[in-house]
Amino acid sequence: MEIKNFSDFCEQVLPDFNKFLDTKLRTEIKQDTLRDAMLYSLDAGGKRVRPMLFLAVAYSCGIKQENLSKMYDIAGAIELVHTYSLIHDDLPEMDDSDYRRGKLANHKKFGVGPAVLAGDGLLTQAFYWIAKSSLDTDKRMAAVRILAHNAGPMGMVAGQMTDITMENKVLNEEELTTLHKEKTADLITAAVTIGAFCANHELSSRLVQYANDIGLAFQLKDDLNDADDGEDNSKNTFPNLIGKEATKTKLNDLVKDALNSVLKETEFDKNLLVSFLDYFKE
Amino acid sequence: MEIKNFSDFCEQVLPDFNKFLDTKLRTEIKQDTLRDAMLYSLDAGGKRVRPMLFLAVAYSCGIKQENLSKMYDIAGAIELVHTYSLIHDDLPEMDDSDYRRGKLANHKKFGVGPAVLAGDGLLTQAFYWIAKSSLDTDKRMAAVRILAHNAGPMGMVAGQMTDITMENKVLNEEELTTLHKEKTADLITAAVTIGAFCANHELSSRLVQYANDIGLAFQLKDDLNDADDGEDNSKNTFPNLIGKEATKTKLNDLVKDALNSVLKETEFDKNLLVSFLDYFKE
Repeated sequence: MEIKNFSDFCEQVLPDFNKFLDTKLRTEIKQDTLRDAMLYSLDAGGKRVRPMLFLAVAYSCGIKQENLSKMYDIAGAIELVHTYSLIHDDLPEMDDSDYRRGKLANHKKFGVGPAVLAGDGLLTQAFYWIAKSSLDTDKRMAAVRILAHNAGPMGMVAGQMTDITMENKVLNEEELTTLHKEKTADLITAAVTIGAFCANHELSSRLVQYANDIGLAFQLKDDLNDADDGEDNSKNTFPNLIGKEATKTKLNDLVKDALNSVLKETEFDKNLLVSFLDYFKE
Repeated sequence: MEIKNFSDFCEQVLPDFNKFLDTKLRTEIKQDTLRDAMLYSLDAGGKRVRPMLFLAVAYSCGIKQENLSKMYDIAGAIELVHTYSLIHDDLPEMDDSDYRRGKLANHKKFGVGPAVLAGDGLLTQAFYWIAKSSLDTDKRMAAVRILAHNAGPMGMVAGQMTDITMENKVLNEEELTTLHKEKTADLITAAVTIGAFCANHELSSRLVQYANDIGLAFQLKDDLNDADDGEDNSKNTFPNLIGKEATKTKLNDLVKDALNSVLKETEFDKNLLVSFLDYFKE
């Protein structure tokens, strides 16, 4: 079936991928409470943006739709890492959120100790899934390296530490950009670059630029939505620092830059990644 | 210089390895609080039993002493994972320990949020170190697979979940053995089996048996020491379940079984692993 755009791609791939995620984790984890706590957050209705982006990049690089399921382990690993980060971020001593996606946060449902362990379990299992994938060893190794680099203490974990320790300090634009890059963009960039690697596409700075742009754009769109909902205006966000209008301009510039970057990509079907940018339209 | 036994091996290798660990992590982690919190626990004076065991196995399989430093990334990864597990175990909602090795626990020194992140950072960085090691891709991939399997939700994390959720239930011998296997023995077994893999030694059930035995023996010795110190006798431990004398007998049996297992190993210099068992002598 022809795939028209990113949202069409998700409609065709997501049901199968969601089933894969649930079945695999449910089969592997024998400790009851741990399995329940891990699945509770994994099955909480996330949009799977990162693994879908990973699969879309692989597809855009020439991997046929019927072969995408061979990449589900890696796509799944990226989603496990994202899910772990949400569970730990919601903890009382971090962002202290009682709800996530309209459901009780993991630590409210299972307790703080089990939530820490559910996160630890998801993070570690991600690397197990990559190691056990059927892709070539070189591709799996690249996936381990990029994911650990971008999601670990040189990336996402560093961003989260800055976020919780700088709560009472007003960050300037440069500091805030670094924070968002680490906390949000690095995992999205990992999804895109691992996708290119796994599809034998020579990684270009254009694709990395695209990924960084949409990573930051994601954060800005989220913060604009929260600002519209009247959220806490003491937080370190661009709407609070430079105002909503200037943030909208910044967001539009990022999306334009992402578009220009991906349009320059060669040997690459640009349709999916261009249509992905529709997400940022108002 | 001739290496006489395991303790001699540690004396010769440990100073160099400790320097490697500290320098590498200090250089890599740029976020100040995160680096401080990660190094605080990594440099807290641990005996490095797991990485030394890993290196001792590699040496026993024929890796020359002057080439051991090529394996420091993998040895270090094992120690990072062990250190992360201690930080998360000490959290108030887990084992609630304020001290570790005579120093304030990580969460008492830096706060619970930063301690969770320091643990997350150490765990993720472990896989980065393996991915960036100079060993063959196949060996690195085996290290990722075994470490993630044994330290994750199919091993150590499962054990810790059982430990904190079964606190108020008396486990029977079989359940307690499973708990100790997952929580303590699985990471020690990973150290031994990854060591054999990295040294091209065909992995035998004898070596796995040795590792499982000493893993459980470790836990029993620890629990016997705590019982001598008059620790809480409501905990799920063998001294509390079957008494101190029966636990000592069990410990001796495990050490004997470990000895018999390693003595049957072929193409293997048995000296180090045999002398390692001295640790369990009273």
